[in-house]
Amino acid sequence: MLSPSEIVFKMYDNDAYSRWLGIVIDKVELGTVELSLEVRSEMLNGFQVLHGGISYALADSAFAFASNSLGYQAVSIETSISHLRKVEKGEVLRAYAQKLSSGRSIGVYEVQVYSGQSLVASFRGTVAISKRIWD
Amino acid sequence: MLSPSEIVFKMYDNDAYSRWLGIVIDKVELGTVELSLEVRSEMLNGFQVLHGGISYALADSAFAFASNSLGYQAVSIETSISHLRKVEKGEVLRAYAQKLSSGRSIGVYEVQVYSGQSLVASFRGTVAISKRIWD
Amino acid sequence: MLSPSEIVFKMYDNDAYSRWLGIVIDKVELGTVELSLEVRSEMLNGFQVLHGGISYALADSAFAFASNSLGYQAVSIETSISHLRKVEKGEVLRAYAQKLSSGRSIGVYEVQVYSGQSLVASFRGTVAISKRIWD
Amino acid sequence: MLSPSEIVFKMYDNDAYSRWLGIVIDKVELGTVELSLEVRSEMLNGFQVLHGGISYALADSAFAFASNSLGYQAVSIETSISHLRKVEKGEVLRAYAQKLSSGRSIGVYEVQVYSGQSLVASFRGTVAISKRIWD
Repeated sequence: MLSPSEIVFKMYDNDAYSRWLGIVIDKVELGTVELSLEVRSEMLNGFQVLHGGISYALADSAFAFASNSLGYQAVSIETSISHLRKVEKGEVLRAYAQKLSSGRSIGVYEVQVYSGQSLVASFRGTVAISKRIWD
Repeated sequence: MLSPSEIVFKMYDNDAYSRWLGIVIDKVELGTVELSLEVRSEMLNGFQVLHGGISYALADSAFAFASNSLGYQAVSIETSISHLRKVEKGEVLRAYAQKLSSGRSIGVYEVQVYSGQSLVASFRGTVAISKRIWD
Repeated sequence: MLSPSEIVFKMYDNDAYSRWLGIVIDKVELGTVELSLEVRSEMLNGFQVLHGGISYALADSAFAFASNSLGYQAVSIETSISHLRKVEKGEVLRAYAQKLSSGRSIGVYEVQVYSGQSLVASFRGTVAISKRIWD
Repeated sequence: MLSPSEIVFKMYDNDAYSRWLGIVIDKVELGTVELSLEVRSEMLNGFQVLHGGISYALADSAFAFASNSLGYQAVSIETSISHLRKVEKGEVLRAYAQKLSSGRSIGVYEVQVYSGQSLVASFRGTVAISKRIWD
């Protein structure tokens, strides 16, 4: 079985979309991941603020990495996100994913997304955990 | 006040991220929008299937367009999505957004995302509706 | 293995809280359940309208019955509900649960709650499906 | 304008369902509320464990009290809850509601529900805030 960091970097290396987003992996521990990205102009929506799909994607990547870091391959089945305020071009978002619970087949994680000290989104996600070990 | 189609095309023209996604606007009626996109290799995650952030973004754009089509500027505040099955490169996703309810300040929409006849994601979103008219 | 109706009536017979709610089972088919209840004064909240916990409970029972009707014991792991309008004492609520998808270990259902022709709540839920057969 | 405690006790006094649940108000501060209840036999479902509608109702009352404690009347529009483990008769549940963000018209709160040291449910809710002051 790979270590949490080995799993997350292996996932990231093969994850074209997280790389397109410019996601940086800031910290990995068992069940906990911190990521960041800088908001670029191609990420804006019709109101010239960050498209909700980008803050979701950042949170979703953090959630996927954190839930897989436990050693078994896990896929997202249900997620929700509150968008708490607008985000502008040039802001740097940081996502903190942590485990709320994890059993044999189901795991639940929470991700908070910050810009500086300001909470911009709150996310919760559920994964289905397979029997396939990361190796 | 602009028509539903005028609002949606105006939003889309200024929406760099929906354009990066390659979203096509297939239909616009008052409170109802249909969009599609083709899954490209830069949209895949570490499992070589579609990143959840892309199906979310498609649904979220459909939701934003449908809720703004009523004539008042509206912003997403809370959304949830169930990912019902994996999506592969080359599949064409179609998102159908429709209004569940809309009052003076709050609107709720549902978006179903299909690949062919197969439902791949179910999304629900809530918008805060402003007093600013689209013109 | 019991039939869908046998499963739902067996669950209901042992379900003290659904009986306290006064839930009536109006229809059972494989993966689909319709329930109703009449709003009583002990179900109201501090605004003298229906407490959100009651419309949730009605939807949650419909979801539980529909997901178990497939023959395997299943438990709710994640649910969300939009409250679309106030409900008053004396209104009769009807909940329609239907399957969106169901695999070996995960099922997703949608429940719409109506009062007359008016949609009062929209609910989506995810179950973990066990290997235990209803018999 | 009433104080946070005055608002919450006024709401509770008129809230027949929270009183049926046997909810106890353990703490009230601006935007923060702690409640508890003991699981009784009439709260169990067909599996003889706590019906999800009860843990939801406890969280929803904590959310309603916390969001109204800011001084303006607020109603729940969208909520989600993860059920993390089974709860049995006799357990005492404690709900901790706190504000994630609150603007002029929209507020978002998180509620964690514990039994002893064990997290049994995680809830997030959105309210629409009116102009009506609690007095």
